[in-house]
Amino acid sequence: MPIISSQEIRLASRPTGVPTKGNFVLAHTVLEPLKDQEVLVRNRFMSVDPYMRGRMNAVKSYVPAFEVGKPLDGGAVGEVLESRAKEFKPGDVVTSRHGWREYVIASAQDLQPIAHVVQPLSLYLGVLGMTGLTAWVGLGLAQIKAGEVIYVSGAAGAVGNMAGQLAKIRGCRVIGSAGSAQKITALTTECGYDAAFNYKSGPIGEQLDQAAPDGIDVYFDNVGGESLEAAISAMRQHGRIIACGSISGYNNEGSPPPGPTNLFHITTKRLTMQGMIVGDWLDRQAEFQVEVGGHYRAGRIKNLETVVDGIDHAVDAFIGLFHGGNIGKMVVKLS
Amino acid sequence: MPIISSQEIRLASRPTGVPTKGNFVLAHTVLEPLKDQEVLVRNRFMSVDPYMRGRMNAVKSYVPAFEVGKPLDGGAVGEVLESRAKEFKPGDVVTSRHGWREYVIASAQDLQPIAHVVQPLSLYLGVLGMTGLTAWVGLGLAQIKAGEVIYVSGAAGAVGNMAGQLAKIRGCRVIGSAGSAQKITALTTECGYDAAFNYKSGPIGEQLDQAAPDGIDVYFDNVGGESLEAAISAMRQHGRIIACGSISGYNNEGSPPPGPTNLFHITTKRLTMQGMIVGDWLDRQAEFQVEVGGHYRAGRIKNLETVVDGIDHAVDAFIGLFHGGNIGKMVVKLS
Repeated sequence: MPIISSQEIRLASRPTGVPTKGNFVLAHTVLEPLKDQEVLVRNRFMSVDPYMRGRMNAVKSYVPAFEVGKPLDGGAVGEVLESRAKEFKPGDVVTSRHGWREYVIASAQDLQPIAHVVQPLSLYLGVLGMTGLTAWVGLGLAQIKAGEVIYVSGAAGAVGNMAGQLAKIRGCRVIGSAGSAQKITALTTECGYDAAFNYKSGPIGEQLDQAAPDGIDVYFDNVGGESLEAAISAMRQHGRIIACGSISGYNNEGSPPPGPTNLFHITTKRLTMQGMIVGDWLDRQAEFQVEVGGHYRAGRIKNLETVVDGIDHAVDAFIGLFHGGNIGKMVVKLS
Repeated sequence: MPIISSQEIRLASRPTGVPTKGNFVLAHTVLEPLKDQEVLVRNRFMSVDPYMRGRMNAVKSYVPAFEVGKPLDGGAVGEVLESRAKEFKPGDVVTSRHGWREYVIASAQDLQPIAHVVQPLSLYLGVLGMTGLTAWVGLGLAQIKAGEVIYVSGAAGAVGNMAGQLAKIRGCRVIGSAGSAQKITALTTECGYDAAFNYKSGPIGEQLDQAAPDGIDVYFDNVGGESLEAAISAMRQHGRIIACGSISGYNNEGSPPPGPTNLFHITTKRLTMQGMIVGDWLDRQAEFQVEVGGHYRAGRIKNLETVVDGIDHAVDAFIGLFHGGNIGKMVVKLS
């Protein structure tokens, strides 16, 4: 194995509020020779996700906190360069949780092989990866039915755009909210959303009522806060809410913003609100990839992504998530 | 049929905030002779329930609003005095939605016969009536399992005490909150609650943590507000919340109080919050009465009730609900 110098991004300090560049440091490491059962992978794309913000706090989120001074991790897809495990050979395409670095030496058991590779490889982080799986599982939990009206917040995000596209395929009327005119256009022209509005352009409740005058059956929540309150008010009887994310609160400092004041609608309208974490559903990944991979190859699903070039821009990409910087899945190209 | 003068309670004006006596009027009516298919019933007990407050607003709650100048209605149990319908004969015990009056002429189809009468008849409003059914259905929706920890707010109320008693029979550890020392004593000595605390004695979150140091699996919410927020924080992973009532907000005036700020726990702990209205579940009533009637006759369920004497005290009884005036089911004896 040649001497390989790899760049990686480490947590320099814990952010307060919205992360800044000073919270991170780009460091060089020299990789050790492979041991038995180890595999050398060159990452091609790495995933940049809002949920990572929670892991930057000292308090454990639903996944362990990142350690200061240690590299971050996250989803990545790459190619095997060298292998001392019989399961892998050079050229194999693999996904792992070892993102935020250019090269990684991983145990064979920490790598997932991809059998029939579809390009671009970034698909395995978005459409066919964790965020696609999140959308797919959430719609399953909500038991969406053809003809129902579904509202997706953070609709131009990695999970949101997939939730809308998949709901559309299943015959729902799909409404989305996002934070820029460009995103709204992407939703209606590329993702098949029936209606979309900019949550910055006016009260969310009013805009939602306009887009769904007869109310909504399902709310796919990626945002929390005002969007959640508006959705609860707009819900029809027996509506379902998938509590997937709450990006509006991830960078909150000090006392938390007030919660929705209309929770009694949950009783009166017999609503169900259900939380989900994609990590609980990895046993459904194969089924998901067959179904959604089929949709993608048939042209029924668009790969909406924002690609940032080079690990030295990864921190900007991450911070950009909280300023609406991405349309679709945010990935960093590492090759 | 003799000439019968019946007293009834009418809504005189819509309350603002907590109802006052001036919002109601006690009126006399003289009953007309029976028509074909009609039945004359003398009510023995009538039910007094917090949810009625919502029906006193002009805006439709989940049940139609009461009309000003018209008698209120609600659950009642009584005896048939005279019948022009073949389904009923004098002496039959029946339940109906025609409470808030001493006598009623009802269509046969609006009366439910009781086959094997258990005394006192007030049981058919509480333990074996709507509030018992509410508790029973809610626990079913929450899929409680032996060994789980369940927290019930409004635990000394009609629904709450039954939820706790039934959960205890099913092998749960049961914790309740209520608003007086007398209620707390009733919960632990009469209803089998493992622990109970007075929500007025200190922060609910702290008291709940003390009673359930390892967290709770199920929260049966009759109260909303601070109790709901505390329960969400105390929930273990995959916990379930039954959103049954929200008495803390029923008399709210002006802008609603802030909602829980910790709803993101629903995602991170994969919680489910489900609303219920007992009216959706009347097809389960027979099954419920067999099961819970069996528990009652076997002495496994206590009939916790507050009996107020005479229709002229019914308004006080109703207002008292919002001042913690009842332990268990609040009923008015009309005989």
